[in-house]
Amino acid sequence: MKRILIIGGVAAGMKAAATARRRDPKLEIIVLQDEMDVSYSACGFPYHLADPVAIPRQRLIARGIERFRQDGIDVRVGHRVEAVDLAGRRATVNEIAAARDEVIGFDEVIFATGAQPITPPMRFAKGAVPVLALRSFRDADWLRELSPSLRRVAIIGGGYVGLEMAETLRFLGAEVELVEAMPRLLPTFDSLVSEAVAAHLALHNVVVSTNRRIVEVTPTGLVLQDGELIEADAVLAATGVRPRVDLAVVSGVPLGTTGAIAVDEHMRAGIDGVYAAGDCVESQHFVSKKPVWQPLGDVANRQARVAGINVAGGNAQFPGVLGSAIFRTFDLAVARTGLSFSQASASGFDPKRIAAQAPSRARYMPQSRPIDLILTVDQADGRILGAEAVGTDAVDKCIDILATATWAGLSVDVVAEMDLAYAPPFSPVMSPVQVVGEVACKDLSPRNTHGVDLAGELR
Amino acid sequence: MKRILIIGGVAAGMKAAATARRRDPKLEIIVLQDEMDVSYSACGFPYHLADPVAIPRQRLIARGIERFRQDGIDVRVGHRVEAVDLAGRRATVNEIAAARDEVIGFDEVIFATGAQPITPPMRFAKGAVPVLALRSFRDADWLRELSPSLRRVAIIGGGYVGLEMAETLRFLGAEVELVEAMPRLLPTFDSLVSEAVAAHLALHNVVVSTNRRIVEVTPTGLVLQDGELIEADAVLAATGVRPRVDLAVVSGVPLGTTGAIAVDEHMRAGIDGVYAAGDCVESQHFVSKKPVWQPLGDVANRQARVAGINVAGGNAQFPGVLGSAIFRTFDLAVARTGLSFSQASASGFDPKRIAAQAPSRARYMPQSRPIDLILTVDQADGRILGAEAVGTDAVDKCIDILATATWAGLSVDVVAEMDLAYAPPFSPVMSPVQVVGEVACKDLSPRNTHGVDLAGELR
Repeated sequence: MKRILIIGGVAAGMKAAATARRRDPKLEIIVLQDEMDVSYSACGFPYHLADPVAIPRQRLIARGIERFRQDGIDVRVGHRVEAVDLAGRRATVNEIAAARDEVIGFDEVIFATGAQPITPPMRFAKGAVPVLALRSFRDADWLRELSPSLRRVAIIGGGYVGLEMAETLRFLGAEVELVEAMPRLLPTFDSLVSEAVAAHLALHNVVVSTNRRIVEVTPTGLVLQDGELIEADAVLAATGVRPRVDLAVVSGVPLGTTGAIAVDEHMRAGIDGVYAAGDCVESQHFVSKKPVWQPLGDVANRQARVAGINVAGGNAQFPGVLGSAIFRTFDLAVARTGLSFSQASASGFDPKRIAAQAPSRARYMPQSRPIDLILTVDQADGRILGAEAVGTDAVDKCIDILATATWAGLSVDVVAEMDLAYAPPFSPVMSPVQVVGEVACKDLSPRNTHGVDLAGELR
Repeated sequence: MKRILIIGGVAAGMKAAATARRRDPKLEIIVLQDEMDVSYSACGFPYHLADPVAIPRQRLIARGIERFRQDGIDVRVGHRVEAVDLAGRRATVNEIAAARDEVIGFDEVIFATGAQPITPPMRFAKGAVPVLALRSFRDADWLRELSPSLRRVAIIGGGYVGLEMAETLRFLGAEVELVEAMPRLLPTFDSLVSEAVAAHLALHNVVVSTNRRIVEVTPTGLVLQDGELIEADAVLAATGVRPRVDLAVVSGVPLGTTGAIAVDEHMRAGIDGVYAAGDCVESQHFVSKKPVWQPLGDVANRQARVAGINVAGGNAQFPGVLGSAIFRTFDLAVARTGLSFSQASASGFDPKRIAAQAPSRARYMPQSRPIDLILTVDQADGRILGAEAVGTDAVDKCIDILATATWAGLSVDVVAEMDLAYAPPFSPVMSPVQVVGEVACKDLSPRNTHGVDLAGELR
């Protein structure tokens, strides 16, 4: 009987296990997870923490350990893999609670070790306020227990997690100050997006300090490089993650240029019988064809499905990532897909940045809100290479239309003229996507003066 | 100076006028409109009628007559075109209020005469309750004035307008009974959609009678073929529209097989210098390549833009329609794009119907709702030919993703694996569109057992 060892039991690990099991009921599947929970949605932590009554802890667990065991998947929580002998096909595993080592043989292995938080370098004074991360369920549990007592929280890092948690912590009644080392929030986004987010945070009384670094955590808060003290009862470190690849490295699994495990389209890690999936691997960008590291839950799921099929004798391929992502901070949604202007330039394209603002629904509908769209367009042929969107309505819809268009290789003139579904409660006569497509058509060929006619949009 | 005559001043007429003006400031442009309003959104009537304070009458007018006149467009309201001499390039126009005829010469003409309500054949007893339509602004004005006194309204016809107005009239406090001649509501949709709509109407206390015809309107309501009386203070006839082509026919403009004006991709109506756009023309279906009549506001706008560019010496082309449409009744949204199963069969495809239900957002988010998606897939190559969607959340988003995919000619396996934007408040890890795409992949090739893994969806 073929035995599959899966190292890691969150998104990628459990998805790979479930997929392999469905595909081949005879496989022996062992999942080793160092935490005590499996199959949980880390992306849901901010919403669970904001309202643990509406979204209780167990709701974040897609499928419980017992369900997996009923399916004949041998899930072992509290087990840390110490070493993997790839040539000998065996792993040394430590049962953490019992402090006991065991050697487990396998035929094929999937590394699904995920990512881990990057902690910024800083000194800790004696009696320093707690510094929390938000990666594991244990992190979330600690923050949930602490949160009723938090009056003032400093968030380090203005990325997705920091901005989502700013909403959660304000909702819970805490004062929030956010410190970002870069000159602006979301520096990989268009500056228009950064400005919209900064304005929205100000509206919700989140104090934002950019271009500032932390040097020390003290009993009263954070000390910055310029000597200023930010008072806080606790600090949330949301300064990003890096692939968790220590075990892969010591086992001899090669990394790619991004520092994550390099895999082919079958999720094979370059050594016979060794697969990897999820936040610990790098992917090929669907547009640039270059390696990128995209540690996101939906990507992890799709990769794990491919790995799960293939360890069960199938032949699935992962087509790459587009970099599609979205998050919410308060009422504002921020989303992207494909290549940004600078990514496109760096990838050898000759891109043009096209921006337009349009109403999310028929202007006379009270729910209509302005949405800003920014396209990255290939000047050579008008193809959409990527897009960004920011606004309080229809951002998810617009970015997914544009993700589909980018995936399909559509050019801006096609997007401007295609037939989307219109009714006043859902869209203007001309979708915001078509408005920015029209603006792009006009911008790309100045002789074409039949540009967008917002005022003439009728019915 | 070249003179363009535009017959009709609602969506298509005014959009064509505005586009032609922007394209060529020297053109002489005359718009003849028999009503007293131009450039209004008939699609907005149900929302205006539900809340005329939030959405006042003038908000439905995209651009006022004076704005058009400032742009040098000669807009003449209350002018009915009696006859058009296409060979002699002149129209006989009646100024309705003055009962005065005038002959106006032109170089090129655009027919934008729209559509008109079909009234079902029925007898009117003396003192019959009022029978209203909802097509012109005058219809809407009448209904708005009448609505405070309406206690009980019978709606004839369970199409978009009937279902939208059921919501409006219930919101205004009237009891509503809806009578549909066909065996089910929305007979051109999948029966799953019809059932969902019927259940939703019942939830909102709208009484629905299908398979029943009206024979008479009396002072107390409607008498049905089987003798039953439906008591009502007023009747809303929402039994569909037909192209308003009387003037085109007597002028010698050829109609197509659908009974609407036949046009080529330049919106030329088969006679030199004669164009047509909007609800009075038929279009080519983008997938089936067959003529279809699609009287919708967004289609009218895109056609009119093409006609406007071309009368101004440009060379724009209308690529056809996909049949994308959406409407709301109460909390339920119903949408479609592309070909239905029966349309695809009739068009020579060998289609398969694929249905799936999936959550609109991460299951643990309180806003998550089930959405039903139905795909029409070409069995020959897995290409998506069309889709339908029904639900109370994310229906517009899903149908527009699928409209984009259908327009781009994507197959179900591509849709299942493409990279959309995920975060719990906006989508499950696997979008409903990808879920139905996966189900389709599985259904189309039974040997492929790596089907959708809802339970294993993590993060």
